[in-house]
Amino acid sequence: MIISMKLHATREEINHVRERIEEFGYKVHSIAGEERVVIGAVGMGDVTACLESIEAMPGVERAVRISAPYKFVSREFRQEKTRIQVRDTVIGGDEFVTMAGPCSVESEKQILETAELVAKHGAKLLRGGAFKPRTSPYDFQGLELEGLKLLDKARRITGLGIITEVMSDRDVEMVAEYADILQIGARNMQNFSLLKTLGKCGRPILLKRGLSSTIKELLMSAEYIVAHGNPDVMLCERGIRTFETATRNTCDITAVAVLNELTHLPVILDPSHATGKRSLVPPLARAAVAIGSDGMIVEVHPNPEKAVSDGAQSLDPQQWAAMMEDLKPYLALWKQARLKEAVAV
Amino acid sequence: MIISMKLHATREEINHVRERIEEFGYKVHSIAGEERVVIGAVGMGDVTACLESIEAMPGVERAVRISAPYKFVSREFRQEKTRIQVRDTVIGGDEFVTMAGPCSVESEKQILETAELVAKHGAKLLRGGAFKPRTSPYDFQGLELEGLKLLDKARRITGLGIITEVMSDRDVEMVAEYADILQIGARNMQNFSLLKTLGKCGRPILLKRGLSSTIKELLMSAEYIVAHGNPDVMLCERGIRTFETATRNTCDITAVAVLNELTHLPVILDPSHATGKRSLVPPLARAAVAIGSDGMIVEVHPNPEKAVSDGAQSLDPQQWAAMMEDLKPYLALWKQARLKEAVAV
Amino acid sequence: MIISMKLHATREEINHVRERIEEFGYKVHSIAGEERVVIGAVGMGDVTACLESIEAMPGVERAVRISAPYKFVSREFRQEKTRIQVRDTVIGGDEFVTMAGPCSVESEKQILETAELVAKHGAKLLRGGAFKPRTSPYDFQGLELEGLKLLDKARRITGLGIITEVMSDRDVEMVAEYADILQIGARNMQNFSLLKTLGKCGRPILLKRGLSSTIKELLMSAEYIVAHGNPDVMLCERGIRTFETATRNTCDITAVAVLNELTHLPVILDPSHATGKRSLVPPLARAAVAIGSDGMIVEVHPNPEKAVSDGAQSLDPQQWAAMMEDLKPYLALWKQARLKEAVAV
Amino acid sequence: MIISMKLHATREEINHVRERIEEFGYKVHSIAGEERVVIGAVGMGDVTACLESIEAMPGVERAVRISAPYKFVSREFRQEKTRIQVRDTVIGGDEFVTMAGPCSVESEKQILETAELVAKHGAKLLRGGAFKPRTSPYDFQGLELEGLKLLDKARRITGLGIITEVMSDRDVEMVAEYADILQIGARNMQNFSLLKTLGKCGRPILLKRGLSSTIKELLMSAEYIVAHGNPDVMLCERGIRTFETATRNTCDITAVAVLNELTHLPVILDPSHATGKRSLVPPLARAAVAIGSDGMIVEVHPNPEKAVSDGAQSLDPQQWAAMMEDLKPYLALWKQARLKEAVAV
Repeated sequence: MIISMKLHATREEINHVRERIEEFGYKVHSIAGEERVVIGAVGMGDVTACLESIEAMPGVERAVRISAPYKFVSREFRQEKTRIQVRDTVIGGDEFVTMAGPCSVESEKQILETAELVAKHGAKLLRGGAFKPRTSPYDFQGLELEGLKLLDKARRITGLGIITEVMSDRDVEMVAEYADILQIGARNMQNFSLLKTLGKCGRPILLKRGLSSTIKELLMSAEYIVAHGNPDVMLCERGIRTFETATRNTCDITAVAVLNELTHLPVILDPSHATGKRSLVPPLARAAVAIGSDGMIVEVHPNPEKAVSDGAQSLDPQQWAAMMEDLKPYLALWKQARLKEAVAV
Repeated sequence: MIISMKLHATREEINHVRERIEEFGYKVHSIAGEERVVIGAVGMGDVTACLESIEAMPGVERAVRISAPYKFVSREFRQEKTRIQVRDTVIGGDEFVTMAGPCSVESEKQILETAELVAKHGAKLLRGGAFKPRTSPYDFQGLELEGLKLLDKARRITGLGIITEVMSDRDVEMVAEYADILQIGARNMQNFSLLKTLGKCGRPILLKRGLSSTIKELLMSAEYIVAHGNPDVMLCERGIRTFETATRNTCDITAVAVLNELTHLPVILDPSHATGKRSLVPPLARAAVAIGSDGMIVEVHPNPEKAVSDGAQSLDPQQWAAMMEDLKPYLALWKQARLKEAVAV
Repeated sequence: MIISMKLHATREEINHVRERIEEFGYKVHSIAGEERVVIGAVGMGDVTACLESIEAMPGVERAVRISAPYKFVSREFRQEKTRIQVRDTVIGGDEFVTMAGPCSVESEKQILETAELVAKHGAKLLRGGAFKPRTSPYDFQGLELEGLKLLDKARRITGLGIITEVMSDRDVEMVAEYADILQIGARNMQNFSLLKTLGKCGRPILLKRGLSSTIKELLMSAEYIVAHGNPDVMLCERGIRTFETATRNTCDITAVAVLNELTHLPVILDPSHATGKRSLVPPLARAAVAIGSDGMIVEVHPNPEKAVSDGAQSLDPQQWAAMMEDLKPYLALWKQARLKEAVAV
Repeated sequence: MIISMKLHATREEINHVRERIEEFGYKVHSIAGEERVVIGAVGMGDVTACLESIEAMPGVERAVRISAPYKFVSREFRQEKTRIQVRDTVIGGDEFVTMAGPCSVESEKQILETAELVAKHGAKLLRGGAFKPRTSPYDFQGLELEGLKLLDKARRITGLGIITEVMSDRDVEMVAEYADILQIGARNMQNFSLLKTLGKCGRPILLKRGLSSTIKELLMSAEYIVAHGNPDVMLCERGIRTFETATRNTCDITAVAVLNELTHLPVILDPSHATGKRSLVPPLARAAVAIGSDGMIVEVHPNPEKAVSDGAQSLDPQQWAAMMEDLKPYLALWKQARLKEAVAV
């Protein structure tokens, strides 16, 4: 920790801060600048509690933590990328993994038709919501258990893995019974009660970044899951909320590169929610591959205008096929780069 | 709904949209502009589903909903402000209601001392967290049930009502047993599973605005609670997340005035979280009174530098007393204005 | 400056940073923490250049400036509030100063009518744009010189001071000839070429905060003007840009309290641009007074629906009169507080 | 325009709005919904003035423009991409164009060395600031005329085109004498006085998106330049300001795809300012190529730690060479896609 004192902090105030730091078990290093005193605290202890205490003291201008607030998820803790095995697919390995499917599971016909469609063009996992977080209480809330069973049926027929959202700690066990990966939506990224439960669920987690969550907060939420016992977490950039209204969200694509520096967890991009508009999905998917994401999750629907949700951002069958075809040479470059890295490490 | 077609939308595309609107049970009104066709849809039906369907259709540029997406919480539904009775206090009535106390319940001594302090200077409710949402899994997570019991003890001694946070639908019943008001934190504003449970809990709710939630989304979340059976909801502006870092959050104070136009639910301001800095709390509290909030919720601690959380934004006993004294003439003006309005209505 | 090195920074990298800091004329203090090395640099020198150099070096994680980047505008440089005399009014003194008038000067009739109206209810300055920054090249761009002459006429008749916007360094001299205060719009807050010219213009400046400018950047822009020779600068909070669309901008009202701590320059609030909606102006004006602004600038128009710009946020004559009447007891409290402070200092 | 009336708007209010619309020369279409009246206005006229007037009227809830507010820059006005010839390079054609160089021109040695370095690895234009917009009045402000002369010398030696920033309408003529492209910085995107002058300068313009400007506002600013006589404008995404602090700005990469739909003007990406950190530039550059930008502008410095500005985001010679090598297969895919599109059109 570094504490900078106010310009006119008194001798007593400075000493008081020094004593308090020592009470927390840290060693104190003072630096008397031309204008103000800066204090460094070195050692191991309860950083947050110490910082909050110091910030509340008179004469203190700012208290800043130097060390990262997360451990298990950091690259410094573990150098090689976490590889998450889901059926016969590895996320974080040397294949870019595509997850695709409708926003919501709507009917047996719809989900089976979509499953075959996405499998045919290279997806390894089928997405589809059985529990739907909806802004309005009057909108379709999902088929729930019935939806899970339909996903299971689609898996048996196509061999695709299943990724689906869980919204409440009460449903974790049930969803984990059916899904290969549990998806946590942006609005639940800091549902700490849910995060703790996920630590014990025995399934890999795809954790979506909150609408206005920083990269650091995303890592802290992943740390919750890992610290509670589940190391198989992948992170998902799906656009953040800004002032721009031309797209549904603003895709912070650089976050992929930042996360690749900070963490060993795989990073997935969601070009559908990031844009909210079908025509923007294929160009953003190319960028997602080029920047080095470990995979993507895309909305596809056999007939978007009949979709009960997210129709505007769902690809129709032709667009889906064309996009996957268009991506092939980029995926080849992706694989080359990944193999080269593997050799370098 | 108003649908504007693309500039070069074809006759078929336009007809297709018209038919789809009619399938949803709406009447169609077309307006052929100089440049493009605009279509109005009139009637009653599943607006969201229809909008999402139309937006997914070729030739459509934009589909916009005209009517508000919420009902029960709107001023149009109910003109007079909702009055929420909590023990002998009414929120939304002709007293500005102050809720005060520590961020976390830490010990019997701390909570009883604070309770007497806040009661002495005019607070009607005691706040204090027993379940704490913390960004880091390594930080203090609250005393939980023990904390609730300490709050109960403070209530018996001082007569103050109790407001405390609930973070998971699993804990709603237990918290409702002890608390007079259940507080929903900013990070849970769109925890829809929790919102539904609150509809049945039998206690008034203070719903905090999410860090990047719009006013409309805040109203939609309140609508969830009301639609599920609980009309006693108050809304809380506690600052939103922006690019500015001089304060912990950016207080969107105008939201109070906007909400007073749009809804009959009481509106509470939280100057502690909105600023994150103790010296900024009293001026913002004056503004909160002046703009017409129904109350405020403030952090007070007997010794902020020993607080386990939020020390930097907690008022110490002297500051708390001074602020409440300073507010008196503003509260008198507030009451005058409220009584005048009551006569006008 | 505080430089924190990366976790695995080498001995050479650390030494290299130390040497570079010394080249810039600073003394070096190292702190070897459990995990990483932190280096403090103490002394006087070109902070920005040194910071930018250090940040570019290998092994460096972050370099942070401790001292404020502005001098003349800081409270530490000057304790008492700057008092700016404009005709017989003092801004930053013991009267809350109201500036009011139309968005644009449209005609002689319009501006004279408005001038009398605003003078009648307590405004001390008349606002009105002769040069208009418009998003579209096809919108009304202002009456320019003719507009300035009409403002001059209104001043002669009513005795009000004149505040009007200047958009280009080329026009500063001309506008300064007619105006009592030069207003710099939000979009020009970092037009550094213009700021330098204002340093020599001989008129007080009202500097509006940029749409996405931090408080620190606002102070830096004020520092430009002061450092180039003009100490009479007042700052204006007029709302920032966020994700919220219910209001035209989001009023960061806490910025007033923050600025009152950081600077001696007067602070003005603009409730018209901050809200964009007439009905929200009076409640926000009350809050502006209560929080301790030095004044406000408000849009008023004799007939808003005939205004060539900003009609939706302009008060009509009745609303203007009612607002000023409603503010009276708040202004009395404001004055009491200001006189008490003056005694305290 | 579509005007939606308030729920309880009176018959008089509705008629008043209808009359006002007709006064502006539009035809009126009313739609009486279940809940409220919606009015469409069709025809040609001064849309902004009419909208602002209507919004100011009683009983009006919202007035929304349907047609785009820009003309010349829209894809609807012109289908094929604008090709801008600069010496022997075409921007907007079938080569991805790289512009590279230091943040500031510092000395003859520095700029000549950099020019040769960037030319060697495929840049077609040399960037380098002679006039520098700096947040602080105490920072290096650029070599001005001397800097322009050094750029000219570098051009004569290497054959590279020159792109450099102009900050004030007073300097446009001088900068246009030396530069092949005039760059307008993010902080000047809405310096309307400057934009008008650029309409007559006879040089292509690179217009950077403002820190918090929407895509629509960027297009409106380009429209200013085109409407004042200069069709050769390219747009530059350089990151917007959000709450995220892990990067200097947040790169809204999807804006490239959105702009490719809305406008025929070329779009350039600036991965240096978008990230602020050298290690993030190469991955973002790959994404810029993949998503379909027409070019990029990158900061390169022979010795970043000795740079007077932006050292942390400048590539050193090795990194620059490696990045350009790494990009080659992506550029080949880019070219294939561009040629295929050309055939398709």
